[in-house]
Amino acid sequence: MSIIKPTLVIDKEKAKRNLRRMFDKVLASPGVRFRPHFKTHQSALVAEWYRELGINSCTVSSLEMAEYFYRHGWRDITVAVLVNRRELARLNDLAGKANINVVIDSAEAANYLRQNLSQYVRVWLKIDTGYRRTGLEYDRMEEIISAARIIREESPLLELAGILTHAGDSYEARSAHALKELFRRTAERMQAIKHVLEQNGIGGVEISVGDTPTCSAVDTFQGVDEVRPGNFIFNDVMQFYIGSCSEEDIAVAVVCPILASYPRRGELAIYGGAVHLSKESLIAPGDKKIHGLVAPFDETTRTWGSAFPNAWVKSLSQEHGIISAPPEFLQSVAPGQLLAILPVHSCLAADLLKHCDRH
Amino acid sequence: MSIIKPTLVIDKEKAKRNLRRMFDKVLASPGVRFRPHFKTHQSALVAEWYRELGINSCTVSSLEMAEYFYRHGWRDITVAVLVNRRELARLNDLAGKANINVVIDSAEAANYLRQNLSQYVRVWLKIDTGYRRTGLEYDRMEEIISAARIIREESPLLELAGILTHAGDSYEARSAHALKELFRRTAERMQAIKHVLEQNGIGGVEISVGDTPTCSAVDTFQGVDEVRPGNFIFNDVMQFYIGSCSEEDIAVAVVCPILASYPRRGELAIYGGAVHLSKESLIAPGDKKIHGLVAPFDETTRTWGSAFPNAWVKSLSQEHGIISAPPEFLQSVAPGQLLAILPVHSCLAADLLKHCDRH
Repeated sequence: MSIIKPTLVIDKEKAKRNLRRMFDKVLASPGVRFRPHFKTHQSALVAEWYRELGINSCTVSSLEMAEYFYRHGWRDITVAVLVNRRELARLNDLAGKANINVVIDSAEAANYLRQNLSQYVRVWLKIDTGYRRTGLEYDRMEEIISAARIIREESPLLELAGILTHAGDSYEARSAHALKELFRRTAERMQAIKHVLEQNGIGGVEISVGDTPTCSAVDTFQGVDEVRPGNFIFNDVMQFYIGSCSEEDIAVAVVCPILASYPRRGELAIYGGAVHLSKESLIAPGDKKIHGLVAPFDETTRTWGSAFPNAWVKSLSQEHGIISAPPEFLQSVAPGQLLAILPVHSCLAADLLKHCDRH
Repeated sequence: MSIIKPTLVIDKEKAKRNLRRMFDKVLASPGVRFRPHFKTHQSALVAEWYRELGINSCTVSSLEMAEYFYRHGWRDITVAVLVNRRELARLNDLAGKANINVVIDSAEAANYLRQNLSQYVRVWLKIDTGYRRTGLEYDRMEEIISAARIIREESPLLELAGILTHAGDSYEARSAHALKELFRRTAERMQAIKHVLEQNGIGGVEISVGDTPTCSAVDTFQGVDEVRPGNFIFNDVMQFYIGSCSEEDIAVAVVCPILASYPRRGELAIYGGAVHLSKESLIAPGDKKIHGLVAPFDETTRTWGSAFPNAWVKSLSQEHGIISAPPEFLQSVAPGQLLAILPVHSCLAADLLKHCDRH
């Protein structure tokens, strides 16, 4: 089918290669479980590629997504955002049908679940290992022990699965070395907590980590029990700039028609805006704020080539965007043609276009 | 129905007051037509509030939206993005059933339409009066005349409706005075073009303008023929900071459950992230990057109060967000309660939540 409007195109070969690479690394790390995050693709079809490798557990970021993947046969799901107390009926319902893992980050929340849940769930204590978004601070051992005790000792329906973190500060890193160092530091902080919990009679807790940048950069996952990266299957310009993937590993693009050309100011207008790409941006070398890179698109094979040097999406309105590009590039394209925009954040682009045409 | 997850709530009274205010200003500007932009709400229900005032023409930003409002009885629609040549079959189809206005910005595009359209359409020449996004540059009269000639003289199916601009640079303004000045400058540049077109035998073209900031700031629309603001019906934190509305005029909020409280660092986690609010941000006084303001929400009346001073959404992940707030505010709220987030850009928040619960 011809592409007539902004369309998410997945390069299945690249995506499967990304998946295989991460999977092999898990296989090479004895005792480590792969629980990939599905918020990136939110697609039962893409989820099948994981199942073909024998992966049966996944991570999601809302109960709605958990229900969606449950309907598609997934029975072991971690909802990796803090429990939303307004959705407890929904959680009870799902937990009665599948193996559901939830995440909390306080003794108070543990008590709340103990008093209000009517179904068995596995509970992960979220640890803040330095990102400062959510989680019990890693060095506040008394608070961690207190929350763990309520789950382990006082709540027959709650099973303490372990401690879980998201080293989101990895998105500030800009080298493989920095990422490896962050993974090491994160694992160390988690192991220290596990050790203190053991000393306090709370043994057998697992360690779950999982952001794409550090998981892509390290050679082995040894030192943790579970990894939960998600973005790696698609990657994006953000991962490319962080240094956690090459440009060739970006497996998703938003294909957009060119609307007009402005050679005098070195710009193009495309049909493709904030409602297709999201307003996510990053600051590229040269202090340029970019909303995406620009590559040629082959409509027959539905694949794209290398990104054009010195071309980028410089601004986004609701439905259209402006590309900055050098003269030789502008001369080679015309209104009505298609361009592949490599998104800054593939999770958000895929979310925006999840109801649309997919390939 | 109880709110359990991030939900767009419209304060109908405020929205209708905003609409009435803009409508009255149009009424007080003899000869000026109101063609409101519907990309802000994308809702046939909200569109009825306009129809109740006798408004029968509208603006949209995609053919898909035009088709949606056509299905809901709208028969005079301007698609205010440059014609996408890949959707010409769709455009022909719609133009055969309704009064469709399209926008182009070059002689080349005029020729393309002349050769490829099979239905009658009204054409507006997009003028760039200084924003530098799309449009023929306002001072390139030869190019404007040349495009106008092709439409007026060479194309039996194309009717030259007029010249159209979007003074999007108004979003950089920060005072009512600057906005009035920008409206005046924009109208002047458009009138100058109209005058030269007349001198060249191309008479009777109309002038269409329409960004919310300038349209909100001016006292009268005299000097133009048509106004197309859209955002004004909801407004948002962006408009509030620009100075084109008061906080009480913000008629839409994304209501979000509180997930956790972090008094030590003065923060709250909410269920509500980039997929609900969009990644849009602005730099507030004190150099703070904000993704929204925070107000108390009354679940019974489904209305919100004044925004808390010194509280703002400081960061957004895919599904959740972090609010920075002073201690007295943190002490007054608890996980499970709801907060109203006043969005930075209501059009994008409404787009993200358009498939969800609306009130």
